[in-house]
Amino acid sequence: MHRYRSHTCAALRKSDVGQTARLSGWVHRVRDHGGVLFIDLRDHYGITQVVADPDSPAFKIAEAVRGEWVIRIDGLVKARTEDTVNKHMATGEIELYAHEIEVLSAAKELPLPVFGEPDYPEDVRLKYRFLDLRRETLHRNIVKRTQIIAAMRREMNNIGFTEYSTPILTASSPEGARDFLVPSRIHEGMFYALPQAPQQYKQLLMVAGFDRYFQIAPCFRDEDPRADRLPGEFYQLDLEMSFVEQEDVWNTMEPVIRGIFEEFADGKPVTQKFRRIAYDDAIRTYGTDKPDLRNPIEMQAVTDHFRDSGFKVFANMIASNPKVEVWAIPAKTGGSRAFCDRMNAWAQSTGQPGLGYIFWRKEGDKLEGAGPLAKNIGEERTDAIRTQLGLDEGDACFFVAGDPAKFYKFAGEARTKAGEELNLVDRDRFELCWIVDFPFYEWNEDEKRVDFAHNPFSMPQGGLEALEKQDPLTIKAYQYDMVCNGFEIASGSIRNQSPELMVKAFEKVGLSQADVEERFGGLYRAFQYGAPPHGGMAAGIDRVVMLLVGAKNLREISLFPMNQQAQDLLMGAPSPATPAQLRELALRVMPTPKKD
Amino acid sequence: MHRYRSHTCAALRKSDVGQTARLSGWVHRVRDHGGVLFIDLRDHYGITQVVADPDSPAFKIAEAVRGEWVIRIDGLVKARTEDTVNKHMATGEIELYAHEIEVLSAAKELPLPVFGEPDYPEDVRLKYRFLDLRRETLHRNIVKRTQIIAAMRREMNNIGFTEYSTPILTASSPEGARDFLVPSRIHEGMFYALPQAPQQYKQLLMVAGFDRYFQIAPCFRDEDPRADRLPGEFYQLDLEMSFVEQEDVWNTMEPVIRGIFEEFADGKPVTQKFRRIAYDDAIRTYGTDKPDLRNPIEMQAVTDHFRDSGFKVFANMIASNPKVEVWAIPAKTGGSRAFCDRMNAWAQSTGQPGLGYIFWRKEGDKLEGAGPLAKNIGEERTDAIRTQLGLDEGDACFFVAGDPAKFYKFAGEARTKAGEELNLVDRDRFELCWIVDFPFYEWNEDEKRVDFAHNPFSMPQGGLEALEKQDPLTIKAYQYDMVCNGFEIASGSIRNQSPELMVKAFEKVGLSQADVEERFGGLYRAFQYGAPPHGGMAAGIDRVVMLLVGAKNLREISLFPMNQQAQDLLMGAPSPATPAQLRELALRVMPTPKKD
Repeated sequence: MHRYRSHTCAALRKSDVGQTARLSGWVHRVRDHGGVLFIDLRDHYGITQVVADPDSPAFKIAEAVRGEWVIRIDGLVKARTEDTVNKHMATGEIELYAHEIEVLSAAKELPLPVFGEPDYPEDVRLKYRFLDLRRETLHRNIVKRTQIIAAMRREMNNIGFTEYSTPILTASSPEGARDFLVPSRIHEGMFYALPQAPQQYKQLLMVAGFDRYFQIAPCFRDEDPRADRLPGEFYQLDLEMSFVEQEDVWNTMEPVIRGIFEEFADGKPVTQKFRRIAYDDAIRTYGTDKPDLRNPIEMQAVTDHFRDSGFKVFANMIASNPKVEVWAIPAKTGGSRAFCDRMNAWAQSTGQPGLGYIFWRKEGDKLEGAGPLAKNIGEERTDAIRTQLGLDEGDACFFVAGDPAKFYKFAGEARTKAGEELNLVDRDRFELCWIVDFPFYEWNEDEKRVDFAHNPFSMPQGGLEALEKQDPLTIKAYQYDMVCNGFEIASGSIRNQSPELMVKAFEKVGLSQADVEERFGGLYRAFQYGAPPHGGMAAGIDRVVMLLVGAKNLREISLFPMNQQAQDLLMGAPSPATPAQLRELALRVMPTPKKD
Repeated sequence: MHRYRSHTCAALRKSDVGQTARLSGWVHRVRDHGGVLFIDLRDHYGITQVVADPDSPAFKIAEAVRGEWVIRIDGLVKARTEDTVNKHMATGEIELYAHEIEVLSAAKELPLPVFGEPDYPEDVRLKYRFLDLRRETLHRNIVKRTQIIAAMRREMNNIGFTEYSTPILTASSPEGARDFLVPSRIHEGMFYALPQAPQQYKQLLMVAGFDRYFQIAPCFRDEDPRADRLPGEFYQLDLEMSFVEQEDVWNTMEPVIRGIFEEFADGKPVTQKFRRIAYDDAIRTYGTDKPDLRNPIEMQAVTDHFRDSGFKVFANMIASNPKVEVWAIPAKTGGSRAFCDRMNAWAQSTGQPGLGYIFWRKEGDKLEGAGPLAKNIGEERTDAIRTQLGLDEGDACFFVAGDPAKFYKFAGEARTKAGEELNLVDRDRFELCWIVDFPFYEWNEDEKRVDFAHNPFSMPQGGLEALEKQDPLTIKAYQYDMVCNGFEIASGSIRNQSPELMVKAFEKVGLSQADVEERFGGLYRAFQYGAPPHGGMAAGIDRVVMLLVGAKNLREISLFPMNQQAQDLLMGAPSPATPAQLRELALRVMPTPKKD
């Protein structure tokens, strides 16, 4: 017999009854039922119930073992009596009658309980992560994470992509966030950087002719702690394709991502055909480029109904500035003064002056718009708004007025709030869509200049002509996001592979050809020696896993995460370097002077 | 029709004749045959021959295109005449008659030719790696590399292992080589380290109960340039298993590695059942722990034949020191004075006093041992040696005498030299074996103390009792290597998961319990809370790929390697940090004072 086990703790079945089996695992818990000891023995695969009778030679040791000890048990497989069969356990029809127990590794008193998973402070959980990871929920999340990643690899291979690992010690490239730097020992005063994303390398792979690349890519950004991002590293499903237009990327990746969601959604519905929503439309309809389509509320502009109306606040705004619009947030089933007032109070709590509304009720046989706005604009306009929005008795509508560029975010929050408060959001589904036609540039108010809105390597729609003749703020890019339930889960673009176009595009943000050569030299050089049209995207693996396991915290789906202060409490990182190390790297630590 | 291609450049067949097709790719070369232009169009998948007749509307552009331009071609698929069919090309039965050519991306004059792959200086190849990677050999090597890695993943998944990614920003851990450090911005004066190997994390995964881990793991060692190791990062197939003995690891991984070799060996024979050779036996038989078993020469001790013999040099050495042995290196077919003298001269060129030998020839009907040694020891002893080694007419034998600990390396080199010179080595096969029972400790002559011979986390054979009672230098570890054709391709061990045993093992090398806690705190802590017996190994992916593609240089199987000075010439790394970056990291560069 094998030294440690003949079966895993999930393997024994009724058909094994009468056999001798050997199991090894952790003592999940021990119960004493009238002098008979029941040990739940746990390993990665499952749990088996072990019985130690007082007359068993193993009884003495069974009395001694405690939670999380690692033991080996030899015993006889017996059928459970019908009333003790546990249908929720794979091994629930049998139990193992121990005749020998060997302690392989005892455990000290636990700083963190495994059984039952009570709440526990995060610093203890991270310091004793090896115990934390034994807890059922986290263990299951991590396993699911690995299965999702394995499925991504399988699907990408199936559709003809090849996984290439790109360098981790590479050059600093100012892509937005801050780089982690790695001092070079051989070249004093010089630094490598960890990649924020393999963006340039994957494009170089296309120029090198590899056609279809993907990678489960580690990415590194030295950002200040944020609730939705772990300090340090994160993983992307990164991919790139040559000789494609954006439709090809969408048609390639939509089935992959849909398939992953379907495989791991535990039966929850997944969008079959992803809508493609232009960025401008997303902003106007949902107030965000990451709409949660489970929320059925769609906003509409109702500016004309307020133009020259009796509601002077809106009418005067409209008259004084052609940019001003009024957006309506229709709220089906929200037609009560109590709900409308609650929304108004919420708006004020976020710093807004308030949230105008109309709600519709029956007065006798007559459908009537109620609330101050309705009174001011009169019956006809009120009903025109109702008709435009398809509302009825018992429904409400909220209004936001001004320059949409300034209020759209708030309008989107109000849409979310109304949808959630009214329980219009179906939580048990995955609604996916593409957001397309992102703006290429945006206005940088701080520096009073045009800046790239997203990826500077994207191809502007309209090409050279657009760059030369169009107002830069109206140029769109072949740039797209994939959004699920209100979260951006992937982002990509068709790339600008023309050196002339690249220089022209950077000129608009104030960078010269020399700047481009200095900052993106490898890529700029490559584009001059036969670069295929190419594009791709990158999906955030952590976010996809969080959605699929229903986790709210990144630490619930990560193996060995750092804490919010970017410390690894388990391994003790970061830590001081030795003087010898610093000397070798030609570095000296110069603490920042304390401020008074 | 698709914007860029209806087929890849490897897709068109005779059955497509008469169809219109659209291809995109790189101009591999252009030939002018009597006014008709032939363009070899290349993509990742293959090459298609394109024909541009002078009366084609595409002819004018066809005349303009140059090597490595990216073009799109629309044309008619025609069958080649029988005498122009190329059986070595997948598309060799057809050619594409162009009627439209679009230049997608022109190329400047090439700094590095792609077609024909002439030799080129390495710095140019690395700076223009995107061109270098288009060259057939390198492109094919990289594709094979990705296939080998994909096959490793597939096989590991198939046998129940799960891939887990372990952290890349982690703690410094003194495992042998130098760490790359990453300064922390949030914690001034503190540093992360890039992992030299995921050793501690994979063991923590076992303690956390994940049972069977693997990873295609990036590893980082800041070592001085070496011919057989790229600066910076390299990849391992890393794995670990719980509840196993070393036989389980061998029985699990031998089929995986054999399968990988068989899948990618292009029909070359691969060892079916790996021999398990004890370290001590490997040293005695092959003079190395990385024997090339394609070389059939096996050394033997022949000390007794020289004891008290007429060859006084050896006889006196044997008499004066009980450690002294004489090893024989039998060399079948080496039985000529010319060859023996050449070996002797080679030995002297390496700094040895010489290499004694005997060779056997027929004198009339009589088999005679020739050479000075044979004369000195006489006929009977000469023949006893011949019999022991199974030698015959036309064979030779070389002799090395002294303390084996001091001469075994040279003996191994002489074995290699003889095998190669005599063409005894069958180069077209893969000979794999396990080297097992490595010593746990070795003598550190510099520091005059016992040191770990290999992995300090390995389990010593004999456990606590051996550590307490045995001469440390005689203790073996449950530690093993896998060797192929003279290269170590994998290394592993059963781990020491007992905290007491760990402290005791480190004591012998002069480290206290406090040192262990400080240096390996995470792991030491983990072992106190129920640690399963576990073990594993790690295989060097670069070395396996090099063997399988027959590459001599790591840069021939690496995508974006650094040069030997640890510089990335393509991306320009390392590079200076900005003053703002250094300020944020609280670092100052302090150049080392120049020495006169």
